[in-house]
Amino acid sequence: MLTARYAGHRSIRIEEHQASPPSTGEVQIAVAYTGLCGTDLHILHGHMDARISTPQVIGHEMSGTIAAIGDQVDGWRVGDPVTVMPLIWDGLCPACEAGHVHVCHSLALFGIDRPGSLQERWNVPAHTLVRLPTDMPLSHAALVEPTAVAVHDVRRGDVQRGDKVVVIGGGPIGVLIAFVAREMGAEPTVIEIDEQRLATVRGFGFRTLNASATDQVGAINEWTGGAGADVVFEVSGSSAAVLSATSLAKVRGRIVVVAIHPIPREIDLQRMFLRELTVVGARVYERDDFVLAVDLLSGGPVPADLLITDIVPLRQTQRAFAELAAGRALKILIDVADGS
Amino acid sequence: MLTARYAGHRSIRIEEHQASPPSTGEVQIAVAYTGLCGTDLHILHGHMDARISTPQVIGHEMSGTIAAIGDQVDGWRVGDPVTVMPLIWDGLCPACEAGHVHVCHSLALFGIDRPGSLQERWNVPAHTLVRLPTDMPLSHAALVEPTAVAVHDVRRGDVQRGDKVVVIGGGPIGVLIAFVAREMGAEPTVIEIDEQRLATVRGFGFRTLNASATDQVGAINEWTGGAGADVVFEVSGSSAAVLSATSLAKVRGRIVVVAIHPIPREIDLQRMFLRELTVVGARVYERDDFVLAVDLLSGGPVPADLLITDIVPLRQTQRAFAELAAGRALKILIDVADGS
Repeated sequence: MLTARYAGHRSIRIEEHQASPPSTGEVQIAVAYTGLCGTDLHILHGHMDARISTPQVIGHEMSGTIAAIGDQVDGWRVGDPVTVMPLIWDGLCPACEAGHVHVCHSLALFGIDRPGSLQERWNVPAHTLVRLPTDMPLSHAALVEPTAVAVHDVRRGDVQRGDKVVVIGGGPIGVLIAFVAREMGAEPTVIEIDEQRLATVRGFGFRTLNASATDQVGAINEWTGGAGADVVFEVSGSSAAVLSATSLAKVRGRIVVVAIHPIPREIDLQRMFLRELTVVGARVYERDDFVLAVDLLSGGPVPADLLITDIVPLRQTQRAFAELAAGRALKILIDVADGS
Repeated sequence: MLTARYAGHRSIRIEEHQASPPSTGEVQIAVAYTGLCGTDLHILHGHMDARISTPQVIGHEMSGTIAAIGDQVDGWRVGDPVTVMPLIWDGLCPACEAGHVHVCHSLALFGIDRPGSLQERWNVPAHTLVRLPTDMPLSHAALVEPTAVAVHDVRRGDVQRGDKVVVIGGGPIGVLIAFVAREMGAEPTVIEIDEQRLATVRGFGFRTLNASATDQVGAINEWTGGAGADVVFEVSGSSAAVLSATSLAKVRGRIVVVAIHPIPREIDLQRMFLRELTVVGARVYERDDFVLAVDLLSGGPVPADLLITDIVPLRQTQRAFAELAAGRALKILIDVADGS
């Protein structure tokens, strides 16, 4: 079978490997599509070399069908369409004991710490499987994982019907958060600096603000009758956004830190005091988030077709990453079954 | 009557003034005691000169009895023992409309923006009054306001019975938070750097950690079976404490920022992500906090006698501030009725 492996030095190596049968408790998936995300790009750029043993098959946003079933696996049949919640928890740490397995102290992920889905056949534990509707296009289903991230973020934000929410950052996750929040009855405004992204976001029917051209605080105050936003999602990763997030939120408002900030950031604690703000961290997802993400993608609220910028064969994974790095694509899928 | 006024240039001026009768809707209080707090010290040191018109009667932690009653005031009688919730809200802003008057967009305070309680007779709107039990010593009642701050902080921390909580900073508010949290069924550890304060806090029966001598993270992990603290209160105002607070909290734990941080502080957003932490701001108090504070002080859980370091006559207010500035006192009360 064909595999795409991160081999260090910003390179993806396409190689033939022998597929192994699923072990006890595992299924083998015939992978259909794998989406590329910001984390994959970080891996390619070497930012996670300390964590990753190379060469490693990466990829964790995927869809496929069950190709084979190992011993002691119940409830699944060959041909079932599935996606995977790619988390590995230890079940022993205080977080797991408290029921928060997705924030396990030693959480690991398929596609980072273990082989991922950029291969034609992928063996995973059966408990990671999430069932897909049989009439859902598998290309759409490759967006379940990032949509589950957005669902989790919106839940952490405790978004309520009628809320006015601000999303700072109009990349794939920011856009998905806007779609999920809108489906929950909230009204999103997306703040972004890139004009092309702004045009895309406006095309989805969302309010936008150009961060570099507008007085953000004034615009959000005007929009909210002087109150400020109910919930602010920081999805940009920029230090300036962390400082501005507190200035955009209403009294008792919530700020969800979605982006990864690898170094400490300055935050306006005086504003947090004056307005009794709440800032919450959000990490990956829980199974309920996956289930709702499947619903939102198969039912219409999240228009997968509009979010998929390109679909390329597995052999062109390196080129697809270059397109992603250029920063304009929303979601690029690898057609893992296309060996051309 | 005698008054103590902040006159700028780090000076308190003791002056005789004519008491004026209460206006419509007001009562006149014969002030018994006024506690000095960190905010008063900030005022004396000129840090709030941009906000305060001088000379200004300061003081807002107080107790007294009603001396006279203005028109259109119902439910109060001369001689009733009272304290005052010294907040002034506009009733019009989005925060007030949402019912959060204590975080009014234009919140003002008696003792800062309007005359305070370092005077023998003090006129305040009747709606600011909080009733005291007739058998509660008025010296103890002067601690209701800071205790209400602690009650509010503990409520913002959503402290539950059995929680292990960390209080960073062993000053008056930190100690009061520890007492309130203990009364709510939680187990506090107080982190402090001053050995004398540590000894005082240990004397109250609390666990302590010397921040400069101990591996805080290791000690808190050992105490909590590797989980981390359920709730962390940042009461020190130091930038180092903001960074360490995130390292001490468990998965899904809460951090309450109690101290004033006038400039932006670095915070570890990666840790907030990894553990899905929540950081909340807490500002002053609501009426329910005052009511519970009265209960806790009159019923025994918060031992006012042990917290009052000294009681001095009004004329010695400047000296009392010097004692407070030395940093070892917990609570110094001004005996406002003592004209000696």
